[in-house]
Amino acid sequence: MSYGESRVYKKVEVIGTSEKSVEGAIQSAVDRAKSSLEKLSWFEVQEVRGHISDDGKVTEYQVVLKIAFELS
Amino acid sequence: MSYGESRVYKKVEVIGTSEKSVEGAIQSAVDRAKSSLEKLSWFEVQEVRGHISDDGKVTEYQVVLKIAFELS
Amino acid sequence: MSYGESRVYKKVEVIGTSEKSVEGAIQSAVDRAKSSLEKLSWFEVQEVRGHISDDGKVTEYQVVLKIAFELS
Amino acid sequence: MSYGESRVYKKVEVIGTSEKSVEGAIQSAVDRAKSSLEKLSWFEVQEVRGHISDDGKVTEYQVVLKIAFELS
Amino acid sequence: MSYGESRVYKKVEVIGTSEKSVEGAIQSAVDRAKSSLEKLSWFEVQEVRGHISDDGKVTEYQVVLKIAFELS
Amino acid sequence: MSYGESRVYKKVEVIGTSEKSVEGAIQSAVDRAKSSLEKLSWFEVQEVRGHISDDGKVTEYQVVLKIAFELS
Amino acid sequence: MSYGESRVYKKVEVIGTSEKSVEGAIQSAVDRAKSSLEKLSWFEVQEVRGHISDDGKVTEYQVVLKIAFELS
Amino acid sequence: MSYGESRVYKKVEVIGTSEKSVEGAIQSAVDRAKSSLEKLSWFEVQEVRGHISDDGKVTEYQVVLKIAFELS
Amino acid sequence: MSYGESRVYKKVEVIGTSEKSVEGAIQSAVDRAKSSLEKLSWFEVQEVRGHISDDGKVTEYQVVLKIAFELS
Amino acid sequence: MSYGESRVYKKVEVIGTSEKSVEGAIQSAVDRAKSSLEKLSWFEVQEVRGHISDDGKVTEYQVVLKIAFELS
Amino acid sequence: MSYGESRVYKKVEVIGTSEKSVEGAIQSAVDRAKSSLEKLSWFEVQEVRGHISDDGKVTEYQVVLKIAFELS
Amino acid sequence: MSYGESRVYKKVEVIGTSEKSVEGAIQSAVDRAKSSLEKLSWFEVQEVRGHISDDGKVTEYQVVLKIAFELS
Repeated sequence: MSYGESRVYKKVEVIGTSEKSVEGAIQSAVDRAKSSLEKLSWFEVQEVRGHISDDGKVTEYQVVLKIAFELS
Repeated sequence: MSYGESRVYKKVEVIGTSEKSVEGAIQSAVDRAKSSLEKLSWFEVQEVRGHISDDGKVTEYQVVLKIAFELS
Repeated sequence: MSYGESRVYKKVEVIGTSEKSVEGAIQSAVDRAKSSLEKLSWFEVQEVRGHISDDGKVTEYQVVLKIAFELS
Repeated sequence: MSYGESRVYKKVEVIGTSEKSVEGAIQSAVDRAKSSLEKLSWFEVQEVRGHISDDGKVTEYQVVLKIAFELS
Repeated sequence: MSYGESRVYKKVEVIGTSEKSVEGAIQSAVDRAKSSLEKLSWFEVQEVRGHISDDGKVTEYQVVLKIAFELS
Repeated sequence: MSYGESRVYKKVEVIGTSEKSVEGAIQSAVDRAKSSLEKLSWFEVQEVRGHISDDGKVTEYQVVLKIAFELS
Repeated sequence: MSYGESRVYKKVEVIGTSEKSVEGAIQSAVDRAKSSLEKLSWFEVQEVRGHISDDGKVTEYQVVLKIAFELS
Repeated sequence: MSYGESRVYKKVEVIGTSEKSVEGAIQSAVDRAKSSLEKLSWFEVQEVRGHISDDGKVTEYQVVLKIAFELS
Repeated sequence: MSYGESRVYKKVEVIGTSEKSVEGAIQSAVDRAKSSLEKLSWFEVQEVRGHISDDGKVTEYQVVLKIAFELS
Repeated sequence: MSYGESRVYKKVEVIGTSEKSVEGAIQSAVDRAKSSLEKLSWFEVQEVRGHISDDGKVTEYQVVLKIAFELS
Repeated sequence: MSYGESRVYKKVEVIGTSEKSVEGAIQSAVDRAKSSLEKLSWFEVQEVRGHISDDGKVTEYQVVLKIAFELS
Repeated sequence: MSYGESRVYKKVEVIGTSEKSVEGAIQSAVDRAKSSLEKLSWFEVQEVRGHISDDGKVTEYQVVLKIAFELS
């Protein structure tokens, strides 16, 4: 990539989930995006949320993120 | 659905319109999304706007909303 | 177009780049969107950023914008 | 109206009230604006609030909105 | 109530739901608050969201609101 | 005033200044608004800023506020 | 207090009023919170508003603030 | 102008348009404001938007801005 | 739980701390909330902050979060 | 100073404290900035916070502000 | 530069001015930053403002931006 | 430290990176700040972003944070 040549990126908003961690939820969303999009480039976290089970444990992290990829 | 299994959602941003009400504009956007997407799950209102006619009547509600659906 | 008939719009988020100007980066993003979408209607600037080269020149404007188009 | 000719709009911020609904409060604000301004064009909702009476009923919706009109 | 005497209010954040409308969800939250708090005074809408059923209908409006009441 | 009757308010945005204090700057803006508007009802502070003189003293508080008044 | 030991704080949102000043309204809200909560620790101002009397005087400052206290 | 004397400013929100550029749209709004207001002092850009024609060209920049002027 | 039946949730704002991680601070806040509230349902992260010790180590993560629970 | 000549300003973010008042905390931050920076020009308040002592008194106002100065 | 190696960047907030254009004001701020900082990397526009002269012309664009540079 | 004595803090905005985790990126930024600044006191996370490699892995977390330190 070199700056100054005209490139165009698109951002999509996805929500990944993980039982373990914020990082796990991010990777889970990126994995899914990877399966249908090419040239993924960066992500930006929008919100971190999660589910609490009946016994008071955080059983799921939900991360809302934007994923940017280059349009070819 | 059960929490803890890895799921990924996507959000799209759409604008629905209605002559009648905010709720009508939301349903209108959801109807259109339903025609091309599966597993719609929830919506989040971003903005409520509208058109005013020459005789000072609100003739259209325009609701900007995000619609989330599960990626399979 | 006439107000009061139910229409639905979608917004996509894209990033255009230009060596020259903010307006150039906007047009660049719109051009790319035009190649795959119909009925583009308006855009909204979200962020203006850019790259600075080693000799301290702004060599690229990067404009994050939302582009709205009517769903038919 | 045609795009590309120079037009200028002004926005004013008003608060409409209604016993019945959000839509009623919007129309109430637009009605009042109509009585002193011409060429009203669109509105944007800023806040939705309301009054609760002593017996726990929502007796008034208060909608803060911006109303835009063309300056001639 | 008269202005200038020292009063203190508290706000609590609640989420009301309704099958029908935004207004219904607001009243539902206020009703519940009324059952345990006195001197409810006003509300402020924070977010409007909702659930979409499998057949693409909005089956629930969820309104996040703050409810203010006077502390005696 | 009684809730439930339809009233409409307008908000204007003004900036008051004072050598002394934030409160002084607010009152200064309200005084000026009072000279041309009737039925002033409340204000909302938007920003607090100020000028610093060459010898490092805050010589002016500038408060941006919205002033609401009832339209009759 | 020592950092590193697990502590949990709660924040409540209250509105204090004063005829005199922003600081007076803050102290008024803190005084009331003190009467029912222990271990108050800090506050964060959310909004500054106020009432304007018929003769154009600011007769009440209303400060919306969050008050944090340690849960034991 | 000298700091420390009590001055009061008002801000109005206007939208200027231009076929050419963001700067053109700003000047267009300022020109119109100048025709009915005195002592214009500064502007603040709130939003940059625009219209896209059927053939995918940006044919109009729309800049929402606040214009401040001193009240005499 | 089934959508469409009227439910009401409340959100409280708490701050959890942990020497180890963001996730630890979240769980710590949820644990404390669990000890006095029932039917905890989800959380939303508001802010991530932390303490830095004299030797430049992050010795405490502080996570401000909202915890939602169903009112019965 | 005259408009139209190219000037460049820098903003730094500082937090001033005072036992007495918001204004005192602002001046305290400006005093400290003055001791190491020249040509201080204006400030913008970002946040107002404070400490509450064990007996429920506000014993410290903490004002987060940006201070701007001209680069020569 | 290669991703994955630990790098640290700093952002400073500066305001550039230009008689001509938004782009001119950005380059003016970057030029000044370049004279005292190395490895400038990117900028992010925060605000666009400007001065209006007595005869209603925009005589100065003022762009508040953050400039990021790598710390070595 | 004791509250009530006048102290002044400064905040700087830095971006730390890590291949591993959000916490790693925070510590990396704090480590670098520690090498040139004294009396680091706390940090506040502003944004969490990251790089995605060609094979769809998150290879770098980038955390934008503010670091506060006491000015002596």
